[in-house]
Amino acid sequence: MDQLPKCAANYVPLTPITFLRRAASVYANRTSLIYEGTRFTWAQTYERCCRVASSLQLLNIVKNDVVSVLSPNTPAAYEMHFAVPMAGAVLNNINTRLDASNIATILKHSEAKIFFIDYQYVPIAREALRLLMVDYNESKVPLVVVIDDIDSPTGIRLGELEYEQLVHRGNPGFVQQEIDDEWDTIALNYTSGTTSAPKGVVYSHRGAYLSTVSLILQWEMKSEPVYLWSLPMFHCNGWTFTWGIAARGGTNVCIRNTSAADMYRSIAEHKVTHMSCAPIVFSILLDAKPHERRKLTNQVEVLTGGSPPPAPLLEKIERLGFHVTHAYGLTEATGPALVCEWQAKWNQLPNDEQAKIKARQGLSVLSLADLDVKNLKTMASVSRDGKTVGEIVLRGSSIMKGYLKDQEANQNAFEDGWFRTGDMGVIHPDGYFEIKDRSKDVIISGGENISSVEVEAVLYKHPKILEVAVVAMPHEFYGETPCAFIALKDGKIDGMDEEAAEREIISYSRKSLPHFMAPKKVVFLKELPKTSTGKVQKFQLRTLAKTYPISSDKNSKSTPSHVKNQQSRSIHHQPQDQVIAMSRL
Amino acid sequence: MDQLPKCAANYVPLTPITFLRRAASVYANRTSLIYEGTRFTWAQTYERCCRVASSLQLLNIVKNDVVSVLSPNTPAAYEMHFAVPMAGAVLNNINTRLDASNIATILKHSEAKIFFIDYQYVPIAREALRLLMVDYNESKVPLVVVIDDIDSPTGIRLGELEYEQLVHRGNPGFVQQEIDDEWDTIALNYTSGTTSAPKGVVYSHRGAYLSTVSLILQWEMKSEPVYLWSLPMFHCNGWTFTWGIAARGGTNVCIRNTSAADMYRSIAEHKVTHMSCAPIVFSILLDAKPHERRKLTNQVEVLTGGSPPPAPLLEKIERLGFHVTHAYGLTEATGPALVCEWQAKWNQLPNDEQAKIKARQGLSVLSLADLDVKNLKTMASVSRDGKTVGEIVLRGSSIMKGYLKDQEANQNAFEDGWFRTGDMGVIHPDGYFEIKDRSKDVIISGGENISSVEVEAVLYKHPKILEVAVVAMPHEFYGETPCAFIALKDGKIDGMDEEAAEREIISYSRKSLPHFMAPKKVVFLKELPKTSTGKVQKFQLRTLAKTYPISSDKNSKSTPSHVKNQQSRSIHHQPQDQVIAMSRL
Repeated sequence: MDQLPKCAANYVPLTPITFLRRAASVYANRTSLIYEGTRFTWAQTYERCCRVASSLQLLNIVKNDVVSVLSPNTPAAYEMHFAVPMAGAVLNNINTRLDASNIATILKHSEAKIFFIDYQYVPIAREALRLLMVDYNESKVPLVVVIDDIDSPTGIRLGELEYEQLVHRGNPGFVQQEIDDEWDTIALNYTSGTTSAPKGVVYSHRGAYLSTVSLILQWEMKSEPVYLWSLPMFHCNGWTFTWGIAARGGTNVCIRNTSAADMYRSIAEHKVTHMSCAPIVFSILLDAKPHERRKLTNQVEVLTGGSPPPAPLLEKIERLGFHVTHAYGLTEATGPALVCEWQAKWNQLPNDEQAKIKARQGLSVLSLADLDVKNLKTMASVSRDGKTVGEIVLRGSSIMKGYLKDQEANQNAFEDGWFRTGDMGVIHPDGYFEIKDRSKDVIISGGENISSVEVEAVLYKHPKILEVAVVAMPHEFYGETPCAFIALKDGKIDGMDEEAAEREIISYSRKSLPHFMAPKKVVFLKELPKTSTGKVQKFQLRTLAKTYPISSDKNSKSTPSHVKNQQSRSIHHQPQDQVIAMSRL
Repeated sequence: MDQLPKCAANYVPLTPITFLRRAASVYANRTSLIYEGTRFTWAQTYERCCRVASSLQLLNIVKNDVVSVLSPNTPAAYEMHFAVPMAGAVLNNINTRLDASNIATILKHSEAKIFFIDYQYVPIAREALRLLMVDYNESKVPLVVVIDDIDSPTGIRLGELEYEQLVHRGNPGFVQQEIDDEWDTIALNYTSGTTSAPKGVVYSHRGAYLSTVSLILQWEMKSEPVYLWSLPMFHCNGWTFTWGIAARGGTNVCIRNTSAADMYRSIAEHKVTHMSCAPIVFSILLDAKPHERRKLTNQVEVLTGGSPPPAPLLEKIERLGFHVTHAYGLTEATGPALVCEWQAKWNQLPNDEQAKIKARQGLSVLSLADLDVKNLKTMASVSRDGKTVGEIVLRGSSIMKGYLKDQEANQNAFEDGWFRTGDMGVIHPDGYFEIKDRSKDVIISGGENISSVEVEAVLYKHPKILEVAVVAMPHEFYGETPCAFIALKDGKIDGMDEEAAEREIISYSRKSLPHFMAPKKVVFLKELPKTSTGKVQKFQLRTLAKTYPISSDKNSKSTPSHVKNQQSRSIHHQPQDQVIAMSRL
């Protein structure tokens, strides 16, 4: 039985492109996509993708060429998830919240051959291209194609080409060449960089296929879903749902902005059944003005991730008719790798108990061959007691191929046959995982591990604290000790000066925490430094914390002025309303 | 990005064994299996499989060795779906309805090293082993292990070994060696042989993994299913649900007999949510005596295949609380390859319309890369008009590796990069497939294709006909013409002799069929020749039909006596009550 060879009939490389071809055949007349007044069927979406793929080849795109896209959730952004790999190329979605300098860095690092730009992003893209030309050979600057609004064209251009031209001039009878090898690259996604500079994460066709299928299974997404694009497609290819909605023959409801009005209107008009988002979107939905709201006529399944949904938010959003499932993922694991699969028996528990369970990260998706929590020193599995913290490690075909052009990062990530997530967590006796902290964020004080997240959780209960991040600061005796960076709600605590406020916070935290876990230093900032996806950049704060000398158990009296200046120069702030955060995703 | 290598962390060969390992970790304390008074959790099932796998290796089982199993749906039969491949070996489930001679043929052809025999099948297995020794080197006869009833041991043995000893003596800490290559063989399933001698169909780990996942998706089997084993595990490994229930963390409810009483009791006691079966099981459930019946407290999802469920049966069974989904598959496609995915809008249609739609074979599962209906001569795709008949061809990683030791069959099956199913069908405008006939069963009369199934459907409406099979018989003018083989309900039609009855049937069929489609010859048999799985062996009937000379439009007057004798010698009858048919599965 070893002599039975693979042939074209029984061995077909796994690729999500299959999902579209199949959808065009079996779901031909079902609605594939809705965007404002535009509607397509799966047969039409397939034809449009064939046309774009053929146009890309006419523009000299060949295998492994990178095609970059800077766009909100438009029909074009969706179609390129198929058209680009159908042309043999690699899709690189760029986070629309990046600044011109970051965009230029990515275009350069990825060696993008074509750069698709949504009309709204033409100004920032123009600036990125200018920066790129400064230190780059002009012949290497990518060809630019603007994506005008398909529903209400604006005429905005940057150069000659526009996306609908590529559709129009393309060959509808384009026959996609079979993928040679399912290990071939399909996508390149840059991490947001919580702990270091952004890295280019490379996905294979195989990994994308398996991740897509696993997530549909784990979330139990039924057939004929109507999926609202409240999650940016540039987050791990929309957590693989760009491909997944084709696999399920569902309908993509594309929206340009995740405003409360647009989301409620879409849900009501198109009978949305599913959506994904960061918990912050719950706040947007809950803060909607009365005229923006619509009553939900059917339950909407919501997959959320990034940070555990806080219990009160969960309760409020579910009361509106949303049913929330919590997931945990990483760009490196092709999106969600753990889903908090709900068990029927938990429906009997009180709401706060349910919220606690829902906040756990849950169970590994089927494409992960193994998942474990390991002691960092011995690399032995920790016991399943819900208490012993270790590093979460993963293995499976949904793990990235690696980081582009970064051998050192690859060596660190893939150790002993595992992918090291850098996240610290526990396994509960029932097999559910719970994240405690990023391994780099753990504070090791006198040999004890302190979870920065736990300290933060206590401080968040203080009525005057808006935002808090706790990091390690050097300590001559304990090695490390916690330092809290805090943004206050009204900038002050009851008229106290900084020193009094610091004492107040420390004494507050000592009421609920062992002394060694309470911060020994508190620094007040107007706003915490964040990545483009809204995650706090703790590595910046660690650098800052090193500048505060601390002796024994006494706090330093004030922040040196040179540090304050440094901080305001070096930290890149993002407007709060843009924070659709996916921690680690 | 071509220089990113596969490593143990990001490339793990696909194998359903992963599903069990994962279940033991994430669903450790959930009930994995119930059989009478026996209950296991997933942690226990995994431990038992580890023990059996280690025992198999102690019995000198090595990679690619075949382990044959002759058992109803017992815990042991289930566990061996994991334990055998965990030992690196190949699982060969043998149809329990075969006779000793067929079993001997399979043991010899597969070169089985170990033969597991359920205690009930010891007599037939003993006879099979005796036959095997007649023309086989004794050293090649497999080692025998009896599977006694785990719940009520009988003490019946055949040789020394018993299954629970293997469990008991095995190593619970057994660490399974990683599969080298997902193309490695996991299972060997013999076809029932509707059209020729049984063939050994070889499955890869990859194919089994992908088929399992696809079928869960297509049937939309939710998490925590309670699955009743009303389908024999020897049918394509229980249509992959042996592996699938582990993937879903469900509960296997094993039953020894598919009697109405046992099925109703299991459904009620264990709150069964899912089951699979041939439509004949509907009849068993509907014919239950009042004291055997139980009221269903929740809807039971039923996946059925083999033959389209007849509308009246469908209506009756659904009225009891079962919800039926129709699938079509082949052993060669690792079970169901098409599922008639239900669309919400069809719920508005009248019942008979719904039944008509449900009888269609449906849409390809996700693991099939392609599915088409091709003109047999030109190999061009037929139009999607629901009328033009062609051969159904498949491509994808769920298609078998090939037939064991049968190069000619492999060449015929894999032509032009497609697997030829040998089934004739149409594509409806909505993309749904419908089977019309086996290609070998199509009758080509004067250049016109006649679907034997269509002629049979008309004859089945005749109130006196119990069973009918229509095949081609040679015709000097038309080339071929239909010949009907019929078993009558009371052996007679209103006291008519055979000649009068033949005229009556022909004239009856001409009322509903064009003359060229009506049978020109009718032969009455007490019972139709069937395979061990209850499928009519049309190839036997075709041989028989050749012995009836027919001239022009006149029927021959009688059956030559030598043919009658030949028939009773050569046709192997199976008792009707054993017919749990899965046509093509």
